[in-house]
Amino acid sequence: MTFKIITELDYSTQGQLSFLLNIRAQRNSQQRVLEERFTLIPQMPHLEKTDEVTGNRFDLITADLPGLYHIRYEAVVENKPVHVSASDLAETEVQDLQLDVLGCLYASRYCQSDRLGNLAAQQFGHLETPLKKVQAVMAWIAEHIAYVSGSTNASTSAVDSLVERRGVCRDFAHLGIAMCRALNIPARYFTGYAHDLQPPDFHACFETWIDHRWLLWDATGLASPDAVVRIGTGRDAADVSVCTSFGPLMLERQSVSCQVIDPDYQKMTPEQLEHVFISHS
Amino acid sequence: MTFKIITELDYSTQGQLSFLLNIRAQRNSQQRVLEERFTLIPQMPHLEKTDEVTGNRFDLITADLPGLYHIRYEAVVENKPVHVSASDLAETEVQDLQLDVLGCLYASRYCQSDRLGNLAAQQFGHLETPLKKVQAVMAWIAEHIAYVSGSTNASTSAVDSLVERRGVCRDFAHLGIAMCRALNIPARYFTGYAHDLQPPDFHACFETWIDHRWLLWDATGLASPDAVVRIGTGRDAADVSVCTSFGPLMLERQSVSCQVIDPDYQKMTPEQLEHVFISHS
Amino acid sequence: MTFKIITELDYSTQGQLSFLLNIRAQRNSQQRVLEERFTLIPQMPHLEKTDEVTGNRFDLITADLPGLYHIRYEAVVENKPVHVSASDLAETEVQDLQLDVLGCLYASRYCQSDRLGNLAAQQFGHLETPLKKVQAVMAWIAEHIAYVSGSTNASTSAVDSLVERRGVCRDFAHLGIAMCRALNIPARYFTGYAHDLQPPDFHACFETWIDHRWLLWDATGLASPDAVVRIGTGRDAADVSVCTSFGPLMLERQSVSCQVIDPDYQKMTPEQLEHVFISHS
Amino acid sequence: MTFKIITELDYSTQGQLSFLLNIRAQRNSQQRVLEERFTLIPQMPHLEKTDEVTGNRFDLITADLPGLYHIRYEAVVENKPVHVSASDLAETEVQDLQLDVLGCLYASRYCQSDRLGNLAAQQFGHLETPLKKVQAVMAWIAEHIAYVSGSTNASTSAVDSLVERRGVCRDFAHLGIAMCRALNIPARYFTGYAHDLQPPDFHACFETWIDHRWLLWDATGLASPDAVVRIGTGRDAADVSVCTSFGPLMLERQSVSCQVIDPDYQKMTPEQLEHVFISHS
Repeated sequence: MTFKIITELDYSTQGQLSFLLNIRAQRNSQQRVLEERFTLIPQMPHLEKTDEVTGNRFDLITADLPGLYHIRYEAVVENKPVHVSASDLAETEVQDLQLDVLGCLYASRYCQSDRLGNLAAQQFGHLETPLKKVQAVMAWIAEHIAYVSGSTNASTSAVDSLVERRGVCRDFAHLGIAMCRALNIPARYFTGYAHDLQPPDFHACFETWIDHRWLLWDATGLASPDAVVRIGTGRDAADVSVCTSFGPLMLERQSVSCQVIDPDYQKMTPEQLEHVFISHS
Repeated sequence: MTFKIITELDYSTQGQLSFLLNIRAQRNSQQRVLEERFTLIPQMPHLEKTDEVTGNRFDLITADLPGLYHIRYEAVVENKPVHVSASDLAETEVQDLQLDVLGCLYASRYCQSDRLGNLAAQQFGHLETPLKKVQAVMAWIAEHIAYVSGSTNASTSAVDSLVERRGVCRDFAHLGIAMCRALNIPARYFTGYAHDLQPPDFHACFETWIDHRWLLWDATGLASPDAVVRIGTGRDAADVSVCTSFGPLMLERQSVSCQVIDPDYQKMTPEQLEHVFISHS
Repeated sequence: MTFKIITELDYSTQGQLSFLLNIRAQRNSQQRVLEERFTLIPQMPHLEKTDEVTGNRFDLITADLPGLYHIRYEAVVENKPVHVSASDLAETEVQDLQLDVLGCLYASRYCQSDRLGNLAAQQFGHLETPLKKVQAVMAWIAEHIAYVSGSTNASTSAVDSLVERRGVCRDFAHLGIAMCRALNIPARYFTGYAHDLQPPDFHACFETWIDHRWLLWDATGLASPDAVVRIGTGRDAADVSVCTSFGPLMLERQSVSCQVIDPDYQKMTPEQLEHVFISHS
Repeated sequence: MTFKIITELDYSTQGQLSFLLNIRAQRNSQQRVLEERFTLIPQMPHLEKTDEVTGNRFDLITADLPGLYHIRYEAVVENKPVHVSASDLAETEVQDLQLDVLGCLYASRYCQSDRLGNLAAQQFGHLETPLKKVQAVMAWIAEHIAYVSGSTNASTSAVDSLVERRGVCRDFAHLGIAMCRALNIPARYFTGYAHDLQPPDFHACFETWIDHRWLLWDATGLASPDAVVRIGTGRDAADVSVCTSFGPLMLERQSVSCQVIDPDYQKMTPEQLEHVFISHS
């Protein structure tokens, strides 16, 4: 699938400071960046860096003067997510657990899985396989959590969403991750661009490690899991914020657009998503 | 310096389950394990694994039967921490920031640095260098937080300790980390063995990334930072728990002993620690 | 019903301080204290006070010297709780709401009903009457919260219990109260003595205001709601702690015993409790 | 002092529901309502009720139809706060403690004084009198907490403000109350109208019980404590919300105006406020 992405961000600063943007599409074995252009106005040198472990890509910008900084990122990205059916997924044995996914079992800033052990066992413990558990977590979230724009903020965590029963994509992903980790299923945060998201924005999903693959889940149901482009991977939103600023920086304006440009693309239906799972890595 | 370590752990289980122990001394460029013996009673095969990114070492044990499992770990470890004086530490420039330490700037489960920005700026923002800031954080914790055995539990976080003004080594480390990250100083959790710790136990410290080195700090003052052996490195205690269990496992008994066996070892004095900083990696 | 109560408390202090005990059985229209004896060793003058609004009774003790203070309270109490059947309870109209129960609709320290509106509406909002809602809250708690001695502490709240799915009587009461208030049903905390409680201790229940009566509910199921003696009434445990100390005071020992002394007393069965409700005021 | 108050509130509802407004000026021994007019459009019968314990005044409105409800409250209020100088305030003895203020020593929803004991003792414990302690709390808040409009929401508590070091009037009051209670000084929440508040809004202050009087403190410094009109008294904001709704109600618009109409009124200076304390009850 091929995507056309255009992101625009305006930041203002009152003094000299550095900030790190994480908005570029990842380059990995299943995702190719066919074209990309990163524009910064006023024009300035800036450093592009890629994290070797996660593959996340950063632009380090040092604003020397107070004022408005306009960033525009345009890209054409192609990816080939793998479609997996339930019958092709073997049981994950603890013995097979790779240590590089171990960190995705631990509690993180916004995913306090350490507190959800009893709840997860009560609700999902009787299900036989990790896959069925994740599907049940997805169904539980869809039934119990309301998507309410503006209802949460940067310090809202999975526990908050669980209690207050509402949130946005980031909160849905956090709750999914926290529940899975509480069930001993490695889970991580996915941030990216989603085809035709309404309203247009960056999007958050989560991935679970089942039978040596990361499967992608969108707990909000707003995006089709095959029609997303990965920007970053992390333990939770703390790891992949759009912008990490080393001083006071204000977001003045943001626009995001992402469209599949394959003429014959069809969104996956809920029925398909019950039997086919999508892996981006 | 050379250390003799003996750890004994008894766990009981009521059914089949796997658990992952993280009690072995790391092997790294500054720390050699001269001898070690890991004993498990009843005798059983178990897997030893090393995480390539962190260097943390794990033993994966699968208890097939209910009952009591006795673990004994004995080791002789030699390490050579580097002593650095303040004048040898250059300024860290944001431009030099290596991406592999970026994760140590982000908020984590027990270190909610995202909430402490204002407090950290108020209290420490006027200090000129990261080193002075960390020293001030250390002094602030020593002055304001009481070491109270048993006052906290597994879900206690840096914010809790900040509010309730008490904790144990783990909490002291979390608060130090959270404050440093809120000041844009990368910081991570260190768990290990400390010479002659009273009462004997595993110990927690923290490390800060300054001028391309990790410097070690013991916010409790109970250990000398040159007289510790690293078991593990992580974002916070969530990453380096002694035992990660995939099912209900009960710790029945624990004993830890660690002694420097160099006959002429002298503990560093508080005066020395104001001018000399210790790096274990 | 007539009860024999014996409570013993040993407190130690390291200096002069005052403390307020709240352990005496209330005197109210449905509860008579037939005999009582309050003993303090060493013997000292102390003030007995009764709160006019709540009826809670306090002993204000000023310990002039460091040392151990032994308190013994013995009482014979008779009460006559009213048995109400569902059909006798009319609908409560908001218009009839008495302002003196309004405070029992508001969120309190341990009962954050303000955060539970969505959850309560989802789970119980479809039920027609306040009585059915409270019964459903009781059933939900019984099904989802495990009684685990020692699992919580003095700062544990209803939200914590909801997330961690465990607690003791105090936590069960807090969660019941928080849920009811989130459903606009006035609810308050009841602390008292319960017949033959195992293990023996002070007990916590809650009351809901329905059709101009306070009905008593024991969410733990450990006590029979007709076989309890009220010590105190409050918004939550913050209001009716056994001891409010104006300085550092340590509880060294506690024993509580409460027995119905009517020879023919029969505990109410779960079946009875589905149709008959108990009001102590 | 005489005040002219005009409040306008527009609420919308999508169905039948009741709500309780708490916007009228209290009538008490130090405050007289000379004139008042309460207008509700569309015109409807509504119940006016006064809580006998607190003196808070409520209007219970039952909206029978979906739509917009416009409320206008106009009043002329005269009050005579007492000016007290430090030398006239005797020591409060615990023995004199009146039980009706006991509830103002306990932790409440937004004032978790139970968690602040160590911090309060560290920071303020050395001061000799309750008055000096409250003054030091006021100075600490002024120095450490930034007034930032929109930085907090309805579930923000004293602990949150303490950690994040920012808030609005409600948060300043909560933090003041929590600190005082942690110092064993009874404290309660005051909500009212303040002369010439910028921007115009309802205002929150707090009161402390010292030598048998409630003294009023505005931790934000935005209002002069002698130039306020009491609407309500409570444990914290949970008790005196402007509107308690028994169903989904949306605030569409709010305007508040309050002016002292005495021609010669002079705002108290910070210097005066160091020596003269104001009591409204």
